[in-house]
Amino acid sequence: MSQPSPQHTMHMVNSYVPGSGADLGPEETALLERRERVLGAPYRLFYQRPVHLVRGEGTVLYGADGTEYLDAYNNVPVVGHSNPRVRAAVDAQLGRLNTHTRYLTEEVVSYAERLTALFPAGLDQAIFACTGSEAIDLALRIAAHATGRSGILVTRHAYHGTTRAAAEISPSLGPNNPVPGNVALIDAPDALKDDPADAQDAFADRIEDAIEQLRSRGHEPAALVVDSIMSSDGLRPAPSAHLSRAAETIRAHGGLYIADEVQPGFGRTGDWWGFEAYGLRPDLAVLGKPMGNGLPISAVIGGPDLFEPFGRQVRYFNTFGGNPVSIAAATAVLDELEDRALPAHADRLGGWLRDELQRQTAADDGVAQVRGAGLFLAVELVTAASRSGGAPDAGRAARAVNHLRENRILISASGAHGNVLKIRPPLVLGESQAERLAEGVAEALRATRR
Amino acid sequence: MSQPSPQHTMHMVNSYVPGSGADLGPEETALLERRERVLGAPYRLFYQRPVHLVRGEGTVLYGADGTEYLDAYNNVPVVGHSNPRVRAAVDAQLGRLNTHTRYLTEEVVSYAERLTALFPAGLDQAIFACTGSEAIDLALRIAAHATGRSGILVTRHAYHGTTRAAAEISPSLGPNNPVPGNVALIDAPDALKDDPADAQDAFADRIEDAIEQLRSRGHEPAALVVDSIMSSDGLRPAPSAHLSRAAETIRAHGGLYIADEVQPGFGRTGDWWGFEAYGLRPDLAVLGKPMGNGLPISAVIGGPDLFEPFGRQVRYFNTFGGNPVSIAAATAVLDELEDRALPAHADRLGGWLRDELQRQTAADDGVAQVRGAGLFLAVELVTAASRSGGAPDAGRAARAVNHLRENRILISASGAHGNVLKIRPPLVLGESQAERLAEGVAEALRATRR
Repeated sequence: MSQPSPQHTMHMVNSYVPGSGADLGPEETALLERRERVLGAPYRLFYQRPVHLVRGEGTVLYGADGTEYLDAYNNVPVVGHSNPRVRAAVDAQLGRLNTHTRYLTEEVVSYAERLTALFPAGLDQAIFACTGSEAIDLALRIAAHATGRSGILVTRHAYHGTTRAAAEISPSLGPNNPVPGNVALIDAPDALKDDPADAQDAFADRIEDAIEQLRSRGHEPAALVVDSIMSSDGLRPAPSAHLSRAAETIRAHGGLYIADEVQPGFGRTGDWWGFEAYGLRPDLAVLGKPMGNGLPISAVIGGPDLFEPFGRQVRYFNTFGGNPVSIAAATAVLDELEDRALPAHADRLGGWLRDELQRQTAADDGVAQVRGAGLFLAVELVTAASRSGGAPDAGRAARAVNHLRENRILISASGAHGNVLKIRPPLVLGESQAERLAEGVAEALRATRR
Repeated sequence: MSQPSPQHTMHMVNSYVPGSGADLGPEETALLERRERVLGAPYRLFYQRPVHLVRGEGTVLYGADGTEYLDAYNNVPVVGHSNPRVRAAVDAQLGRLNTHTRYLTEEVVSYAERLTALFPAGLDQAIFACTGSEAIDLALRIAAHATGRSGILVTRHAYHGTTRAAAEISPSLGPNNPVPGNVALIDAPDALKDDPADAQDAFADRIEDAIEQLRSRGHEPAALVVDSIMSSDGLRPAPSAHLSRAAETIRAHGGLYIADEVQPGFGRTGDWWGFEAYGLRPDLAVLGKPMGNGLPISAVIGGPDLFEPFGRQVRYFNTFGGNPVSIAAATAVLDELEDRALPAHADRLGGWLRDELQRQTAADDGVAQVRGAGLFLAVELVTAASRSGGAPDAGRAARAVNHLRENRILISASGAHGNVLKIRPPLVLGESQAERLAEGVAEALRATRR
């Protein structure tokens, strides 16, 4: 572990700067002071003027002063804030039984059967943990065990989690989080810069190059880990063939393809899983965030080919992993996603929203691209007149995000340069809310146009 | 990462052996088959004849066939299975708001204030995560950041968690989980073998020796990590001065003392925290298991001396860490522990239980020692007539654990040799239940005596 140079202070996109003199009311100022005392520097707030929340319902969050915010950012409450079905399921289970998996219980088995049935054949077993970070960490352990190798490939601005092993493959965490020698970085596909005629070959070539880098440092490739929507790279849903070719490439070199579905999974992109858009079958899929609508639960999905030898030889146990209460929440999430056909809704409404934003920003040459999949949308902002050649405009992104916050719409920004608006509402977003969101984003872009 | 030799199959104390022909009913046999198909080899069950559970209340767990089990094993439901106050708090919060900590919310701040007030001065900030493993992993990252060093010292049969970094300092996970070169092992204090006149010096000497080992492998010590009750070493509450001397020793060499309070914390040992018995102030304390009575929540407790530089320079964020629902559960746990004075209850009733077990086993020369703190008790079993010189009797421990299970009392076994009965009921254990437990354990020991 290398030591960061002390002069580096970590920067986070859309982060409140303590002591910046934000115009907060007395109640918020007092709460902020208490928070800084007891939670301290590791805890960061969103927005120039942080939002103080007391209640949520569906896609609406309520401030302490009664202000209603349209939540167009949070992917965890996928079936809506304070979802009554999740609440009832959790309450019933908390009154019945909550224990670990070293006793026989029905709930975890039934849910695992239902969950794995949503995956292609071969991905028919589940290991439960509590967070996406834990699941990524476990997937890395399984890959290392299966291959006997140590090399990992990720995209250049990837984020995969916060345990030490997950942070090591998360270059987006910045210069104080240097990636070690067994990790190699690949530029994500970039529809604005890649030549369409040869983009697929170019992406595969970058993987080959990264494998060569690893070898030159003494590491054979164990796995390629890809967020299927490349969220922290600036939301780059790859052209359809790119990732299946990538999976073939890593397998040809004896490594595994690990799909990080923590962000795209559970209907967000319009499919159940982000990897479906690429027609590939990952060796392992990692699930998290929306899985329990906010109750901590995550999973690694795989097959006996990998889980049997790992399980026989390595002792893995997660006390809270697969506990009946988190499982009850996760079961209610599947009920809601299925009964309300939310993946299809995300596809349809997200498509409308993308078209609408494209239409409303067509004349804005600072908008390089509106892109996304389902209800996960990005607006890339640049300074120059030429869209593809424009310099990243993080300043405008920050102004737009804070402008929207003042107009009671919550989004954030993303990407290596912080210049990509990230729009990611709960999937229960209604049509009139989508209209308000589109109008709000368009207005914020007009207000922040040079 | 080294590759385990393929011939090793992991052994776990008190583990059901699949296909061992346990006499299960048709319902359990069917559930077990489904479970093995969809959860597979990583999932292990307790007991020769696994227990199928459907309900829990207080210290009682109910089987699918209506059988009532006295739970004398589970430390997570510290204020009782299906605790109504925890349930009500979770339900109310789930109907109000559940979100991450990048908005201002009252709940996480209030709880952090209340929790840190239970610690000595200097330990006045909290970082929340979801599992003990995540919190240990984070504590290791903070220690590496603060010291710029990589060496870690742990006890020889320690267990600290299941992320890759936590597993690296968990030698109890067995031969397929080899500890890397930056980790050195220290024999835990052993009241049966240590010479009382010089045990404290001997323990400090072992730390010095381990530091020398680390240095010879190129690592300066970053931290000594100690489970304050040394549970997986076979429950070895150290004589009072040992660990404060250990803390002085590691600090003299520039390392941190990290108290792993995942098992002993929250009143289990009769104090709020296990380290209190030693009169020491750790640099970091790690909390987990009982914190939310089964809702996933954990924490690292420390001071601004460590958290400020780490927080400024390293980006750490845990999406579910400190979410209002887990915080509501944790708040209700503190309410219950305080209002019902459960730490004092654990001290008193645990003391009675220990005395009673000592009395009832006094004539049994296969019982080397009954020990423990509060409601965390151990009975060490040996084969030889001479207690201190006896060989570990794992076979008798397994027979006693399974005999108790058939008599509807749930405990387990522990220690490097699996010969230590581990008795660890929810802290709401009543007096008549304690009597039944003492009688049950004594009877199981009579029934398994050679």
